[in-house]
Amino acid sequence: MTDIGCALLAGQVAAGARAIRWLDDQDPRGREVLREIFPHTGRAHLVGITGPPGAGKSTLVDALIGEQRARGRRVGVIAVDPSSPFTGGAILGDRVRMQRHALDEGVFVRSMGTRGQAGGLSRSTYDACLVLDAMGYDVVLVETVGVGQDEIDIVSLAHTTVIVMVPGLGDEVQAIKAGLLEVGDVFLLNKADRDGVEQVGRELELMLHLRGQDGEAAAWRPPLLRMVATRGEGTGAAVDALEAHAAHLRASGQYQRQAGLRSYHQFTATLREAATRRLLERALRHSATAALVADVHDLKVDPYSAAEALLAQTEL
Amino acid sequence: MTDIGCALLAGQVAAGARAIRWLDDQDPRGREVLREIFPHTGRAHLVGITGPPGAGKSTLVDALIGEQRARGRRVGVIAVDPSSPFTGGAILGDRVRMQRHALDEGVFVRSMGTRGQAGGLSRSTYDACLVLDAMGYDVVLVETVGVGQDEIDIVSLAHTTVIVMVPGLGDEVQAIKAGLLEVGDVFLLNKADRDGVEQVGRELELMLHLRGQDGEAAAWRPPLLRMVATRGEGTGAAVDALEAHAAHLRASGQYQRQAGLRSYHQFTATLREAATRRLLERALRHSATAALVADVHDLKVDPYSAAEALLAQTEL
Repeated sequence: MTDIGCALLAGQVAAGARAIRWLDDQDPRGREVLREIFPHTGRAHLVGITGPPGAGKSTLVDALIGEQRARGRRVGVIAVDPSSPFTGGAILGDRVRMQRHALDEGVFVRSMGTRGQAGGLSRSTYDACLVLDAMGYDVVLVETVGVGQDEIDIVSLAHTTVIVMVPGLGDEVQAIKAGLLEVGDVFLLNKADRDGVEQVGRELELMLHLRGQDGEAAAWRPPLLRMVATRGEGTGAAVDALEAHAAHLRASGQYQRQAGLRSYHQFTATLREAATRRLLERALRHSATAALVADVHDLKVDPYSAAEALLAQTEL
Repeated sequence: MTDIGCALLAGQVAAGARAIRWLDDQDPRGREVLREIFPHTGRAHLVGITGPPGAGKSTLVDALIGEQRARGRRVGVIAVDPSSPFTGGAILGDRVRMQRHALDEGVFVRSMGTRGQAGGLSRSTYDACLVLDAMGYDVVLVETVGVGQDEIDIVSLAHTTVIVMVPGLGDEVQAIKAGLLEVGDVFLLNKADRDGVEQVGRELELMLHLRGQDGEAAAWRPPLLRMVATRGEGTGAAVDALEAHAAHLRASGQYQRQAGLRSYHQFTATLREAATRRLLERALRHSATAALVADVHDLKVDPYSAAEALLAQTEL
């Protein structure tokens, strides 16, 4: 085993940070460390947290960290930030959380930004989860900003998906809820001291009730909990719900299966990128297929017919 | 040419709607129609519009439609809605717009939802743009809800990318701006009668000024325009900016190149999905590779090592 792999499994923060950086940079040493630590993953409870901008997710995550620490758990946090497709860096700082938890060795916060490539964020998040898991964090919170398909994909691969809602964010946010509703395991209605909370609460309860109709008998019924994260209200109940969901998954064997699904998802994503790259590289090496690729650029052939023609010439 | 292809090129709405439905359903007839109409595309000005939830995009798009109609243009609108990964349908209605423009033959509104597959939304949107383009709409507005990477990918493939901002949406939205800032060609600051508009306006102007530093001499300088879409204020200037940007792209030859880029993007996306599907199908047909895939599910091998091992056994 490499020194970094050993140090990482011993929970050393510097080793974990370096491994995540290598993996992010697609440095081959990252992949070697990942291979070493992989058999030591699968223990941490992965919790995905998403919701619309303005829902107060950072404050809420901060409150959840505090509560988990009070219960003696070590907590890893991955803050998935929107970022520029050009500069590639994460742009949201972890100022609030870092100030409060900076000196706490039981908390490790890491921001991830997109790297401008399709699936890059999903991959970086997956890798970082494995690293924090292997480092021995009991809980890994994956917080995403925004509510697009990317965010849903990322959080729905966690063991437990938490959806944060707030009163009064307008029609579009109401609409977004429907997409989030089906992936949520725990719903937190934040800013519950605000006007409109009763109406949003009733709507969500109705929608969750309707969703509950088609589940099996032993299915999990997603709770809807009210919070005022700025004052820490409802935090204990929220962490109780996370633990109840983890216990539910363990009892049904789904906890371990979820890790297999995540791994398979990453496997197919990796195949997808590598196969496409090789296919295009090979196409450009031969004049007939290179001409076809040029025709796509010149709009002489539609993209689907061109893809069909190229695939017909491969062994696949 | 098929009857549907003919009717579509003649601008018949029913034919366009049917072609879009076929393409959405991956019905082979859709692909045939697309091949027929493809040489008749490339004329429409594609405008992508995005911004955070609550920015009033629907009302703003409604105002832009009205102004374009007043200038005698036929307008296609594709409303890209977030939707459930399970039910697959679009969930936002087009109530407001439909009420106002329902009887106007110069306006065609179509909502697209995700189909639960990676890249499905991007593909459906691309196909629908080609159909509306071939039907003879002068302008196609592609409106997305949300500001994730998916939305940025979709709108940044348009000729002109419009970013809608509003005052007072909190820190997360401020952060999101940085990602949007680099893809925007025209910035519309909506709800400009609200408190905080001066501060947001100054911030955006500073950020746009900084962004402008690294451009070439003949580069487009993205304008920042104030609007109150609910009262129609600023709509004329906004449409002027869209037209100025289209003229800029035409003068530099970029207008046509953008269509080639879109087509190439769709070509590689199609290759990616098809190649992965074939690769996995073949892997499952042979016992050694099928065992490898099972090992991924059982966490006996990490996903990257497994992908590498599988690719090593292909002709690619």
